[in-house]
Amino acid sequence: MAKRHESVFFVSIMMIKQALVEAIQAKKSYLCVGLDTDPNRLPAPLKGQTNGVVAFNKAIIDATKDYCVSYKINTAFYEAQGLKGWQAMEETLHYIPKTHFTIADAKRGDIGNTSAQYAKTFFETLPFDAVTVAPYMGEDSVRPFLEYDNKVTIVLGLTSNKGANDFQHLHVSGVTEEDRLIPQLVQPNRKQTLFDTVIEKVASWGTTNNLMFVVGATQASMLAHIRTIIPEHFLLVPGVGFQGGSLEQVTMYGKNKEVGLLVNVSRAIQYASEGDDFATEAAAIAKQYQFEMASYMAS
Amino acid sequence: MAKRHESVFFVSIMMIKQALVEAIQAKKSYLCVGLDTDPNRLPAPLKGQTNGVVAFNKAIIDATKDYCVSYKINTAFYEAQGLKGWQAMEETLHYIPKTHFTIADAKRGDIGNTSAQYAKTFFETLPFDAVTVAPYMGEDSVRPFLEYDNKVTIVLGLTSNKGANDFQHLHVSGVTEEDRLIPQLVQPNRKQTLFDTVIEKVASWGTTNNLMFVVGATQASMLAHIRTIIPEHFLLVPGVGFQGGSLEQVTMYGKNKEVGLLVNVSRAIQYASEGDDFATEAAAIAKQYQFEMASYMAS
Repeated sequence: MAKRHESVFFVSIMMIKQALVEAIQAKKSYLCVGLDTDPNRLPAPLKGQTNGVVAFNKAIIDATKDYCVSYKINTAFYEAQGLKGWQAMEETLHYIPKTHFTIADAKRGDIGNTSAQYAKTFFETLPFDAVTVAPYMGEDSVRPFLEYDNKVTIVLGLTSNKGANDFQHLHVSGVTEEDRLIPQLVQPNRKQTLFDTVIEKVASWGTTNNLMFVVGATQASMLAHIRTIIPEHFLLVPGVGFQGGSLEQVTMYGKNKEVGLLVNVSRAIQYASEGDDFATEAAAIAKQYQFEMASYMAS
Repeated sequence: MAKRHESVFFVSIMMIKQALVEAIQAKKSYLCVGLDTDPNRLPAPLKGQTNGVVAFNKAIIDATKDYCVSYKINTAFYEAQGLKGWQAMEETLHYIPKTHFTIADAKRGDIGNTSAQYAKTFFETLPFDAVTVAPYMGEDSVRPFLEYDNKVTIVLGLTSNKGANDFQHLHVSGVTEEDRLIPQLVQPNRKQTLFDTVIEKVASWGTTNNLMFVVGATQASMLAHIRTIIPEHFLLVPGVGFQGGSLEQVTMYGKNKEVGLLVNVSRAIQYASEGDDFATEAAAIAKQYQFEMASYMAS
């Protein structure tokens, strides 16, 4: 049975994905700002300050909210600080305007009863709109997240790091026992990669409303191929900025009729300046991305 | 550069794995007790009590410590409770005797700079001896954990849940670009599963001292095969008890000359009784597992 919870994002009966699509159109932006806040990298005026992380996040949110439609909190940076980190994550989440789509970048996934606890963590205890999930453990590790109404599960497809090459690009041939029960999956001669198979199979577990996929910007040329598998799903695209991915290429290969992209930028915005002007510099970089996005949306 | 931190487990210069091997021999037990504590499943005397989770965990630890060599804390159950959950996890970890090997069952894994934060979380902020890690994102997502001296990274190999069949059992053929640089991996006609490839490749990133693998007890017949790939690594084996795995079969197929197994039991011990006798019943079940293990170690 589906669990019903109110969304933080856009308090209405509108489906969360539809609200995101409308926000993107209204703002001419598909920018997601990443809050991967490292207490050791706070700008000079906040360094060493009690609650410096929260003060920093609030300043970054104030500075960028007009140019983005989403915020992504990378849970690792908060957990590493223990209790005060979790408190900072909570305060940051509650500060994000309800008009913005909130993502817990947590990459969780475990057996069913444990994934249910993670879903509770990021959809109830910390009421994010979406959470990132790792696919290795298969359907029953993803299913508890999908059981929530009006929440979004974002599954790793093809990641932006070098290690993506270790397993995600492996060629997969043959089928598992379970596939044999689904005739359309049995194509003995098909030659596809693990990430193809993951995306194809995971997509069959949910809908374009409750499922998105992570596809790294550093793999932009693969986006056209991925669009042949999932033309309609939203893609969360990390790797633009510090990691070197190109916004232009990501858009060219990945944009669909609803835009269908959330392009995340973390470090390039957060750490635009280490001085007193960190917030105005962050705003300037975010605005620059928004401006570029608006031009791609017009063409 | 390797980061140096003192181990919680066995305060000495002895390598952590060697200490574990000696504890197993001394206690005639390779039992790991799982602390997947759900506040809604506390026994009657602790239900609704402030700090009931910690009181329960302490009672379970007191009751079982003579029969096990390790405790595994499932982070999801604590995170779901937010701040007070993290506090309970911290208190529980610090209560575990230093003679026992402590595992954060967290299944983390992300790009390098983020995995470094997770490693800090579970090796420094919460000083566990070991943490479980998901392999999908490849080498740079695992490497930051391996950089810690005298800590153990436990990577998912073959899991105990039904969803293991979705991707882990897929046949992998062909090689990635990177494999071509390592001649011994290029065997064009090899036919192996994804979990084979994961185990083989991850094993090459570390040593038998700093790496272990998760192999589910429900996959006992695969253990003999997995032992041909990694004869010497320790395996963390969940799935005995509630999930239906057989201790006898796990031992028969998985035991090596150092035993090389940590068999985890969570629910069957934690929830042995819902009444006043929950601790004595937990002790009885743990003792029963230890007794069975001693008999397998003797033969």
